[in-house]
Amino acid sequence: MKAEIISIGSELTSGQNLDTNGQWLSRRLAEIGIAVGWHTTVADDLDANVEAFRIAAGRSGLVLATGGLGPTQDDLTREALARAAGVELVFNEASFAEIRAMFARRVRTFPERNRVQAYFPAGAEPIPNANGTAPGIWMLLGACHVAAMPGVPSEMYAMYETQVKPRLLALGLGGGVLVQRKINCFGAGESAVEEKLLDLTRRDHVPEVGITVSDAVISLRILASAPDPATAQALIAPVERTICERLGELVYGFEEEELQDVVLRLLEQKRLTLAVAESVTAGMVAERLCRLPGASQWFRGGVVAYDNRLKVALLGVPQSLLDEYGAVSAAVAEAMAVGCRARLGTDLAVSTVGIAGPGGASADKPVGLVHVGLAWEGGVTSRHWNWGGMWSEVQSRTAKLALNQVRLHLQRA
Amino acid sequence: MKAEIISIGSELTSGQNLDTNGQWLSRRLAEIGIAVGWHTTVADDLDANVEAFRIAAGRSGLVLATGGLGPTQDDLTREALARAAGVELVFNEASFAEIRAMFARRVRTFPERNRVQAYFPAGAEPIPNANGTAPGIWMLLGACHVAAMPGVPSEMYAMYETQVKPRLLALGLGGGVLVQRKINCFGAGESAVEEKLLDLTRRDHVPEVGITVSDAVISLRILASAPDPATAQALIAPVERTICERLGELVYGFEEEELQDVVLRLLEQKRLTLAVAESVTAGMVAERLCRLPGASQWFRGGVVAYDNRLKVALLGVPQSLLDEYGAVSAAVAEAMAVGCRARLGTDLAVSTVGIAGPGGASADKPVGLVHVGLAWEGGVTSRHWNWGGMWSEVQSRTAKLALNQVRLHLQRA
Repeated sequence: MKAEIISIGSELTSGQNLDTNGQWLSRRLAEIGIAVGWHTTVADDLDANVEAFRIAAGRSGLVLATGGLGPTQDDLTREALARAAGVELVFNEASFAEIRAMFARRVRTFPERNRVQAYFPAGAEPIPNANGTAPGIWMLLGACHVAAMPGVPSEMYAMYETQVKPRLLALGLGGGVLVQRKINCFGAGESAVEEKLLDLTRRDHVPEVGITVSDAVISLRILASAPDPATAQALIAPVERTICERLGELVYGFEEEELQDVVLRLLEQKRLTLAVAESVTAGMVAERLCRLPGASQWFRGGVVAYDNRLKVALLGVPQSLLDEYGAVSAAVAEAMAVGCRARLGTDLAVSTVGIAGPGGASADKPVGLVHVGLAWEGGVTSRHWNWGGMWSEVQSRTAKLALNQVRLHLQRA
Repeated sequence: MKAEIISIGSELTSGQNLDTNGQWLSRRLAEIGIAVGWHTTVADDLDANVEAFRIAAGRSGLVLATGGLGPTQDDLTREALARAAGVELVFNEASFAEIRAMFARRVRTFPERNRVQAYFPAGAEPIPNANGTAPGIWMLLGACHVAAMPGVPSEMYAMYETQVKPRLLALGLGGGVLVQRKINCFGAGESAVEEKLLDLTRRDHVPEVGITVSDAVISLRILASAPDPATAQALIAPVERTICERLGELVYGFEEEELQDVVLRLLEQKRLTLAVAESVTAGMVAERLCRLPGASQWFRGGVVAYDNRLKVALLGVPQSLLDEYGAVSAAVAEAMAVGCRARLGTDLAVSTVGIAGPGGASADKPVGLVHVGLAWEGGVTSRHWNWGGMWSEVQSRTAKLALNQVRLHLQRA
């Protein structure tokens, strides 16, 4: 049995937007042992949509479609599925009540236009959407199972995980399993990491070990194919142990874990509070620390001292340090961290300064030079790094460097 | 005449790699007036490849394919095209000489395996590849023109620009241009925006007007097909004017412009400075304002007062207001903006508070409720909104709401 993914929208066929839903869904299906044979992307055109569903249902056992479920005139998936199945669209009272309730919860008037979202091909089952107004559609086209989901990634991700995946598992559509383990590292380059693992990243190694880099985070992927999860896990475990032993404290986490997740977990374990004093990262460290609910117990907040006057006024950095060493210096980074910790009353404070470019650089302070300061009870330290690269990369990598310095301090303490 | 793009490779259908060639080619074809109706992605499977070419040739006048031209066993495009056309593969001496010459220029031994790259479907024409060993294939499948190119983006880009595009223009397949204008709005829902434009978003309207939503930004896309750019522009201009008139200040920008770009431009025009006091957005507003180099002249920085103690200590919010109204209130949002402006010494300050969920909600303060405060010389105001949705969406949408409030203030002043 092969699966097919259909992405719907003229914004995709015209090239205006890049479709990432197809890749995401292919990965999710691989995890439950379902191989994808086709991705089809089709414009907002009724005949083309009907044809896409008919072709897919003829050659695939499962079709996952995204897009075309909104309330506007170019949202055609409901009608296309009805035509492909040769049935009428039928109004669904229960689904309509849910859509109205969603608007009521958001204290917004219900637009009459959204009524169309409660119509479904006869015989189809609505799939609840916890994060938006468009319900999904679950139905059969001949012998082919079809799940139509919204095109908005956040809504689609949640609908797949909570509603569609359980239906696929219940049907037993997957066969064997493809299990993947991801190990995330920070603090060294890709080739430096791979040099320690050359025997494992060979193309004929079983299980397969891949290495990818994304914005200064190096990820190792161990991929094992087996009849069942336990067998796959037995292939993965010794390789994972070897990688962790060789890479030591470069490894900060697993799977989708990010540096801020580890920092918040360590803060909670040690019952310590953190504040940030950001110049070059301009709020990025704070924003990352607040991506998870409940962070406020350990992460108090911070100061974005983009302008030097604010470094003095809000963080108490002596003007003399700025005059003598310049803002992008170990001395100022450390003074920011110390001042932030004192004024915000936290156990730890981390600071960032740097030359993100294109202006402000000099021979001894090139674009990409950054300093990260870290202050704790009874101590302060700083570390510098030179990223090179573009403005936005210098900022986001420095935010990760700052979080990594906090992680290393908490792990070593 | 519609075109179709076929991307070939199991690394794409499996989700391992993201296909970006389809988007790139769609954009290039639009520039010469050729609309794309379909993207098809197919695994490295001979039967599936043959079927993909047959279906495409049956419904499209032009097919651009990428991938499957390499020398290895999973490179099947040559054979698939021959089978789809019902012809043999034929060895091409001239093309073979070019492939050997390419290896010689790179001072590399010629691997015998690469000989297969000199085989072409009978009647097909080799397309020279200046940047790699794999020649492309130019042929007819019935009445459909087919260009098969390498999957490596850099090789494909060069082959399209120097070899394929001239062939398309010579055939007069384009015969015109497809011009697109994007209008970006913030401050109303998708269906509320469409209600004002129902006569324009009708499916038979010329030029075509599409509507899409992405994280609370509503974009209208006007798409005009015409013999030349000036005629297309003449079709677009009156529709663009009508949309802008009807939507008024909901429209904030065009093409890829984002809210922070407009805010920074207005601050510079009016020579005003801005600071931010963020609770629920936790640094996101500051981070967006610092995405462009040179922002620091108008954007000074801010305070991330995630914890209520920092709202008091750093922004001077009276504890009594927090006790009486709670942090998520108009009173506290306004006090934060006023305090931020005074302590950071800027002309304007904007603040955010909100219930991002899942904790902290109550009957009268549901998850998704946010307040944005704005203070200027001699005034302060606030606005609330209820986003519903997930944690990360509440945060990013509130960051946009805050930037939009600054934009509206600057535009109205």
